[in-house]
Amino acid sequence: MKIDHIAIAVNDVEASAKVYQKALGIDEIEFETVESEGVKVAIIPMENGRIELMQPTKDDSPIKKFLDKKGPGLHHMALETDNIDGEVERMEGCGVQFLGKVRPGSAGTKVTFIHPKSLEGVLAELCSHPK
Amino acid sequence: MKIDHIAIAVNDVEASAKVYQKALGIDEIEFETVESEGVKVAIIPMENGRIELMQPTKDDSPIKKFLDKKGPGLHHMALETDNIDGEVERMEGCGVQFLGKVRPGSAGTKVTFIHPKSLEGVLAELCSHPK
Repeated sequence: MKIDHIAIAVNDVEASAKVYQKALGIDEIEFETVESEGVKVAIIPMENGRIELMQPTKDDSPIKKFLDKKGPGLHHMALETDNIDGEVERMEGCGVQFLGKVRPGSAGTKVTFIHPKSLEGVLAELCSHPK
Repeated sequence: MKIDHIAIAVNDVEASAKVYQKALGIDEIEFETVESEGVKVAIIPMENGRIELMQPTKDDSPIKKFLDKKGPGLHHMALETDNIDGEVERMEGCGVQFLGKVRPGSAGTKVTFIHPKSLEGVLAELCSHPK
């Protein structure tokens, strides 16, 4: 299993992307809107993964609720596996609880989320990239 | 720049390590106490980095304060660079603020921390591994 990305909640993704771009010396940042999750995302490439900044695009987005409660900051970690369906089955066999079924994410990925109570307060995305 | 590790604050690092070990299917987890930072750490190997669980070892540890205020959860992200001194100089030239100077970390690393106000509420460790 690999670290795929670190996801950060922000109020203004374009302004925050400029802050990260300058601080980390990043050449180019891509933006993507994921309607199903209610977020606009800035994708900051690292050598071995990504940092993703997420701004809510609607009031009922979970990111909006997170920002209202806690302000901007670390939101979740995403772990990549080659076999998401097998991994979910193995984890469920260990009692791990998920937030929703495996579903299509952006750019051909498959994603689901591990409930924070199964990982000591940490929300974790589990994802597979297309082969 | 690479993602080096994701650091998580926990109350009981041995119990939490067992939760992660089972959930993520990890063979072996190493433990390390870093007296200078006041933490006992469980190091969970990923293919391209690590997840680190941190339990405070003294009452004035910043991790203790974090746990008292927010409970267990994501604490900081760590980014690795080959040239930490050069990178700090470049970042300071961009107005990035640091928490303390570059100092020895565990296992021959050099570390410093970027102030959360310079990265949209995110505490970030900057580290170099010995060559």
